[in-house]
Amino acid sequence: MKLSTTVLACAALVFGMSAVVSAEGPAPEASPIYGVTLPDGYRDWTLISVAHEAGMNNDIRAILGNEIAVKAFRDGRRPFPDGTIIVRLAWQFQSSPRNDKVFPAPQSFVAGPPTNVQVSVKDSRRYAASGGWGYGQFENGMANPNAALIQACFTCHAKLRALDAKADLVFTSYSQ
Amino acid sequence: MKLSTTVLACAALVFGMSAVVSAEGPAPEASPIYGVTLPDGYRDWTLISVAHEAGMNNDIRAILGNEIAVKAFRDGRRPFPDGTIIVRLAWQFQSSPRNDKVFPAPQSFVAGPPTNVQVSVKDSRRYAASGGWGYGQFENGMANPNAALIQACFTCHAKLRALDAKADLVFTSYSQ
Repeated sequence: MKLSTTVLACAALVFGMSAVVSAEGPAPEASPIYGVTLPDGYRDWTLISVAHEAGMNNDIRAILGNEIAVKAFRDGRRPFPDGTIIVRLAWQFQSSPRNDKVFPAPQSFVAGPPTNVQVSVKDSRRYAASGGWGYGQFENGMANPNAALIQACFTCHAKLRALDAKADLVFTSYSQ
Repeated sequence: MKLSTTVLACAALVFGMSAVVSAEGPAPEASPIYGVTLPDGYRDWTLISVAHEAGMNNDIRAILGNEIAVKAFRDGRRPFPDGTIIVRLAWQFQSSPRNDKVFPAPQSFVAGPPTNVQVSVKDSRRYAASGGWGYGQFENGMANPNAALIQACFTCHAKLRALDAKADLVFTSYSQ
């Protein structure tokens, strides 16, 4: 039972499935397990990099960071210092028929409606049990209340340890 | 002759071909035709949106804006006010075998090495002959000196007029 819950949660994360908000009321401001909130002003933070996830996600994404995060990325500092906050925004990956009329072939893909925002907060003491990172996922500014979904953040990020021990559980590299 | 030069230049722009710096010396700081320079601090500007150009470009890109640009995008103000500066960064579109080992299928694409940075500056008087916009393209921090390439910026952006008259020659929309 525990295994299938984990598999479901991991699938939800990887495939971008959204949990249904319960009928008990609006989602809380903070994520389950970690108590991570959507940082004020994050939308104006510095860009770290961009990415595209195909498959079930089919999104295009931008990764932003607060000042501590940006400095660590630029300095190549690992592990990331406490206070690092990384915000991943994602939007539906959509072709642009308008742009394609300008370009010589169907080739232009742009950001459609937003899907969700994921936040990673480094606090090596508070989040010692999850490699120093706390996680949250937000839709329309509200924390996703699905604990199994949020638990799966660490499950997936932790897989990086074996592949890239120096990454400190962070998928993103800084793009000049 | 003029037509073929334009076609070549447009192809260079659309296909992301880089002009070879002449043997006369380093590229100037400012773009030909428009005198556009790489703005100080642009790498920390606010993200407007992201995109992927497939085909010959095969890049993934981020569009950043200065404060005037961001306010105009968020307020839906068109045409953009003078002082608007939009910076488009692009990187090679690369699959990530490392990430794909974490995800359930080959699906992860990330930003590789940078290709070029394109800058659009709104100055309705100075650039009246090109719809109010001046353009520049930069590689490794240096302005691309190819005048035909830079001329093609307006050629392509101007095609938006017939498709989307309210866009003020700007392809990008703001992503929440």
